[in-house]
Amino acid sequence: MLKFDEEKQIESVNGAIALKSDIENMIDKVYDKGFDNIYYLGIGGTYASSMQAVTYINGKSSLPVFVQHAAEYYTTGNKRLTDKSIVILSSVTGTTQEVVKATKQIKELGATIIAFVDEPNTPLAEMGDYVISYPENEQLKFFMVADRFMYRNGEFDDYEAYYKELKEYLAAALVEVEKSADNFGLAFAEKHRHDAIHYFIGAGNQWGAVYSYAMCYWEEQSWLRSKSIHAAEFLHGTLEVIDETTPVTLFVGEDEQRELAQRVGNLLPRICGNYTIIDSKEYELPGISDKYRCRLSYFIMHAITQRIDAHVEKLNCHPLEIRRYYRQLDY
Amino acid sequence: MLKFDEEKQIESVNGAIALKSDIENMIDKVYDKGFDNIYYLGIGGTYASSMQAVTYINGKSSLPVFVQHAAEYYTTGNKRLTDKSIVILSSVTGTTQEVVKATKQIKELGATIIAFVDEPNTPLAEMGDYVISYPENEQLKFFMVADRFMYRNGEFDDYEAYYKELKEYLAAALVEVEKSADNFGLAFAEKHRHDAIHYFIGAGNQWGAVYSYAMCYWEEQSWLRSKSIHAAEFLHGTLEVIDETTPVTLFVGEDEQRELAQRVGNLLPRICGNYTIIDSKEYELPGISDKYRCRLSYFIMHAITQRIDAHVEKLNCHPLEIRRYYRQLDY
Repeated sequence: MLKFDEEKQIESVNGAIALKSDIENMIDKVYDKGFDNIYYLGIGGTYASSMQAVTYINGKSSLPVFVQHAAEYYTTGNKRLTDKSIVILSSVTGTTQEVVKATKQIKELGATIIAFVDEPNTPLAEMGDYVISYPENEQLKFFMVADRFMYRNGEFDDYEAYYKELKEYLAAALVEVEKSADNFGLAFAEKHRHDAIHYFIGAGNQWGAVYSYAMCYWEEQSWLRSKSIHAAEFLHGTLEVIDETTPVTLFVGEDEQRELAQRVGNLLPRICGNYTIIDSKEYELPGISDKYRCRLSYFIMHAITQRIDAHVEKLNCHPLEIRRYYRQLDY
Repeated sequence: MLKFDEEKQIESVNGAIALKSDIENMIDKVYDKGFDNIYYLGIGGTYASSMQAVTYINGKSSLPVFVQHAAEYYTTGNKRLTDKSIVILSSVTGTTQEVVKATKQIKELGATIIAFVDEPNTPLAEMGDYVISYPENEQLKFFMVADRFMYRNGEFDDYEAYYKELKEYLAAALVEVEKSADNFGLAFAEKHRHDAIHYFIGAGNQWGAVYSYAMCYWEEQSWLRSKSIHAAEFLHGTLEVIDETTPVTLFVGEDEQRELAQRVGNLLPRICGNYTIIDSKEYELPGISDKYRCRLSYFIMHAITQRIDAHVEKLNCHPLEIRRYYRQLDY
């Protein structure tokens, strides 16, 4: 299978889950110390992951957790982000300029910074009060933080049972999703790899997923035009430009906002002849209890879209790692 | 001038500003009673206006003010929205179904509801603890609420001086902006009325403006494909699909995030041969002090884009009030 190293992927996910005790130690310390607000700080892909984590928490918790956009922070500020706040960030390179700039100001303010930075000895790693350097799996790390906070806040009683299942079954289940999605990924890539514009729609945790998929994968990596739109917002404007030939893909997840995606799923067949619905529910996660699937459906979607990207890369003869402009020009 | 009734527009804006004492009475009551959080509730266009109001407040105030998406509320919930919260909403028809559904739940919870509903005797008007029925000017009404809250919170000392200027000069200044933008609006409409996809970029109060302009005007009313993207986010993905021929329009405002738009403005001429920059600073507002322009630049942009829409409507032979699907089908 193209661009697929089963053993490596299993090791990568299991390694992230093995951060559990490190994350627990870290979150327990900041939780016990007390705080006013918790912010997931991001830009681009990390902004999308932040939206996913915060939507996940909002449905289950009374914790004051918010998304803070890095560039909005250093321009507009946020007077409720104080020295008693906790700020969680993630970066592969540790040098994302807007996040560095925002984090410097947040550091001076005295807020507590939890930094997941793949590359140690970089500006963002150095500014963290707590730093974990483990590659990839950004969303998993963000969600593990969320889970521990909710557990400590008395909002996740079966936390240990849940993580027991993740540890035993998640990594293997996800590679099975990838394998079973490969034919779909190839067919989708063949059909849509030259689309003039492709619409991706989702709600709940799938909103961050489509936001990131359209922007970080189609636009940034594949140089393909795409627009992401929240399922609820799609019905308040964007729907009017859809006709028989418009390429539209709906991500349907399993969290509280599933019904918002399903509303769009009810409409699409009546107005569009070129739509695809990807429903995470159609993919099995052996060993994972049904009641936990709502917490995990974004993983399934990511496993599926990875298969699309692998085939688009090959068919379009376009290496995903090249950039036209990002970090090539100063602006 | 096409679709332009100077007298009516002046009367409309002045009538909204004349709501000042009603709004003050209302906000003073809820402020004095005390509250935990303030939410602007919306979907589609009202979601965009909510984002604008909240971004405006975030830069100036420590008040706990947030955007609450209506459909996310009735699916995901928000445990920090309580019987001590204040919820502000706006609706032309008073029947927007997702807002009605969310507001029913919020009403049962016992939060205080401030409703701007153009049509009285409608579900949303009936659920308001405080109701103001005055047509159009949604953003102005939202900002007037914001201003009074900030004044009461000790964060807007020259509130009265500011409103004195608005009352005397704003309405006339805005019709002058429209007049001076009409030639531009026609040229823009002629050039872009058949674009396959048009990118609109903005930051700060202009982010809500481009979000709403792309979705509620181009997509919903003109049935033209468009994508809105925050200026800071544009540089983290979307930039890679821009080339010489891509139609891109950047809205540059005058608030704290002006620099984020300017960064995009620095890049565009190097990578794109089909871009437009609309800078609110290039339009005069006679009688309005410079120091207040940052609070008003979204009005200028709205006055300018109205000229584009009027010409697109005529040239494309497409009445802006018709809908293909919205309220035509059940889904």
